Amino acid sequence: MSIQKTALALLLSSCLLAPNAWSASDTDEALVIQTDFGVKDGAVSAMKGVAFGVDDDLHVFDLTHEIPAYNIWEAAYRLYQTVPYWPKGTVFVSVVDPGVGTDRKSVVLKTKTGHYIVSPDNGTLTLLAEHLGIAEVRQIDEKTNRLPGSEKSYTFHGRDVYAYTGARLAAGKISYDQVGPKLADQVVSIPYQQAQLSANGEIKGTIPVLDIQYGNVWTNIDDSLLTKAGIQKGDQLCIRILEGKQEKYSGSAPYVSSFGDVPEGKPLVYLNSLLQVSLALNMDSFSAKHQVFSGAEWQFNLKKCP
Amino acid sequence: MSIQKTALALLLSSCLLAPNAWSASDTDEALVIQTDFGVKDGAVSAMKGVAFGVDDDLHVFDLTHEIPAYNIWEAAYRLYQTVPYWPKGTVFVSVVDPGVGTDRKSVVLKTKTGHYIVSPDNGTLTLLAEHLGIAEVRQIDEKTNRLPGSEKSYTFHGRDVYAYTGARLAAGKISYDQVGPKLADQVVSIPYQQAQLSANGEIKGTIPVLDIQYGNVWTNIDDSLLTKAGIQKGDQLCIRILEGKQEKYSGSAPYVSSFGDVPEGKPLVYLNSLLQVSLALNMDSFSAKHQVFSGAEWQFNLKKCP
Amino acid sequence: MSIQKTALALLLSSCLLAPNAWSASDTDEALVIQTDFGVKDGAVSAMKGVAFGVDDDLHVFDLTHEIPAYNIWEAAYRLYQTVPYWPKGTVFVSVVDPGVGTDRKSVVLKTKTGHYIVSPDNGTLTLLAEHLGIAEVRQIDEKTNRLPGSEKSYTFHGRDVYAYTGARLAAGKISYDQVGPKLADQVVSIPYQQAQLSANGEIKGTIPVLDIQYGNVWTNIDDSLLTKAGIQKGDQLCIRILEGKQEKYSGSAPYVSSFGDVPEGKPLVYLNSLLQVSLALNMDSFSAKHQVFSGAEWQFNLKKCP
Repeated sequence: MSIQKTALALLLSSCLLAPNAWSASDTDEALVIQTDFGVKDGAVSAMKGVAFGVDDDLHVFDLTHEIPAYNIWEAAYRLYQTVPYWPKGTVFVSVVDPGVGTDRKSVVLKTKTGHYIVSPDNGTLTLLAEHLGIAEVRQIDEKTNRLPGSEKSYTFHGRDVYAYTGARLAAGKISYDQVGPKLADQVVSIPYQQAQLSANGEIKGTIPVLDIQYGNVWTNIDDSLLTKAGIQKGDQLCIRILEGKQEKYSGSAPYVSSFGDVPEGKPLVYLNSLLQVSLALNMDSFSAKHQVFSGAEWQFNLKKCP
Repeated sequence: MSIQKTALALLLSSCLLAPNAWSASDTDEALVIQTDFGVKDGAVSAMKGVAFGVDDDLHVFDLTHEIPAYNIWEAAYRLYQTVPYWPKGTVFVSVVDPGVGTDRKSVVLKTKTGHYIVSPDNGTLTLLAEHLGIAEVRQIDEKTNRLPGSEKSYTFHGRDVYAYTGARLAAGKISYDQVGPKLADQVVSIPYQQAQLSANGEIKGTIPVLDIQYGNVWTNIDDSLLTKAGIQKGDQLCIRILEGKQEKYSGSAPYVSSFGDVPEGKPLVYLNSLLQVSLALNMDSFSAKHQVFSGAEWQFNLKKCP
Repeated sequence: MSIQKTALALLLSSCLLAPNAWSASDTDEALVIQTDFGVKDGAVSAMKGVAFGVDDDLHVFDLTHEIPAYNIWEAAYRLYQTVPYWPKGTVFVSVVDPGVGTDRKSVVLKTKTGHYIVSPDNGTLTLLAEHLGIAEVRQIDEKTNRLPGSEKSYTFHGRDVYAYTGARLAAGKISYDQVGPKLADQVVSIPYQQAQLSANGEIKGTIPVLDIQYGNVWTNIDDSLLTKAGIQKGDQLCIRILEGKQEKYSGSAPYVSSFGDVPEGKPLVYLNSLLQVSLALNMDSFSAKHQVFSGAEWQFNLKKCP
């Protein structure tokens, strides 16, 4: 009877554990896709078809497909803005690839936070490598990791190599090692102005992107730099914005918690969703009104008003 | 042996029921997200990452992210247009929130139809409350229902509070009671002109939205009001459209079943997908041609032509 | 004891098989939706709500909702571009339906590749029928295949009939036979210029669509026709583009593998993701620069430069 009891016990545990066991053997990973393709044609859907064909249990999501064509910097920023909010193990596929068909490498970055990013190594990984850290970089072996039958297609790596490889990695059909050979722990990086605090209490940074929908101006100045400069909620801040050497805006605004803290139409400085200094007009577009835009050539200077 | 038999019976039932039990204990609910964020940046994807992090079995869908910035009325209308077509138990998250950071309340409305809507209580719930009915309103307790680690973020409630709470509710990680304290059975409502039938047989209503893609004019006049006015398919209808006091269009069109019932370029009155009176040009844009738009200031008058 | 052992064995097998059995009885098919509705309103979401209401295990995807209003040709092309990348058994719903409410038929095409397409039979199926082949065509019986309660709605077949029927077919709630009566093995086809090779070595084709996001010019000329004309990578090609009888562009470009093979701003001929001849400027828009667009009236002529 003891054998039988053991069998029962095993059986019982296997039954009770079934849902978990099923979860464990199945993949619950997400595949999140970013491109500069737009969604007016079938390109993104073809990528998703390939991914779904790899494993119909994959959870496929969009990051955005509205990266301006060829804008690698913005691709880098959108990943930086989004990746940390997805669970460890999530696989991202980013296809902003002006160099498709050149010798730029196709890689999969594993971050120290356990996220995977499939991308051309063309600068797209700049900000993730810096902020989440590089655990490992592997080059995609396109002989083994390519949609069967796509060998003659040279211009849609996004579908034939990236979506296919990303889906197989997310679905556990290949391990990270099977992506291809390990490279040095570095990625191609786009140079940009880091935020810094001067001795005179002025903070300098850039405007990496706009909050497009509302025309708010985002900077790369962390809240910790405000603290270091002794700036607190309620302080009036003096701001100068330059495009290259040319001043585009000079003015002041209170540092507040949220939009409702100032009247409609008035400027405010607040921390955006990445806890970085941002400048806006309540219920209006700062960017449109003051013709302030984003990019490495834009400088954002800030200090407590005297 | 009787104990063993009982164990077996239990085991048997637990095994045979496993798939169903799994279904029952698991969530099969959908989370449907609406915002005015657009999809050009990573904001919507960050919200979905938070939701997926709560439960990787959640079914996450979009309503739309193209609500014009701050347009609470349109947010209300899109929910009204869509919610009834989703099953009972579906959780909607709507983030059109010009007052983020003010004292507007964050609530979850439970409708009498069993749908849940997570939203700022700023008018977004006007039409659902009216048409589906209020079963209960609860205020979100942001101390317990907030993405861990997001305490310093004041400007992205959509990600930190709404997506997180909506996902936990849809996934069954919290019950509706655990959202927070029960409020009175009412929501902030935007006043608007109700459709009505005058003694002289004229029907008055408004143009709540356009059918944007095609330029068709939608009204809030139900088919039941046509019946009451004795209007039938085939009748020629005389229409006057005003913006405030100014007449913008005056003309007539037949009341027909569908676009194909009139020649190309000709006007028609039909029932839209919500069974409300609409005015269009077959294969052309009525709105563009006659400069008719939507909003509370637009009046739509209609009667059977003499 | 033997009965008990048998019970145990049965029990064991039913337990161990539970996850697979569950998978097998469940549907893993995808429903992929294409419309000309845009995503600014709630129409697409209402369709998805109906589909999710049919079966909450369905995998619902978008092809695109940005088909230009009423543009049946583009609907046909996007299906042609995308369907083959989805697994056999996938159900597509395409709603570009200028004739809604007329006597155009609502059908479900089963292709020889095992894909299903729910669509009005108005030309949308032209290219799939030609390239994937017709296995069978059935007309939707709208009496049995219509969202319960939608009988009074005549203008949103996309939601009430197509999404509902497509979801039920994908979910296995109805068999293909239950869609409705079998029709002849043909669909309404839009006439267009086939690609052909003249005796003098010139290839003639059309420009069915642009690669919108980048302004690249796509043709319907397969790589096999290049091979037949003796054209190889590295050859310089002479190109003439006409709109009707009017020449819009005349020039030459090398036939290369990819964009990186020519300097920035220079023209190239390459095979697009469908392995068809395409013309582009590296990092620039050929369409915008040379005012070349797409449609049946555009002619694309090509030969090896003398």
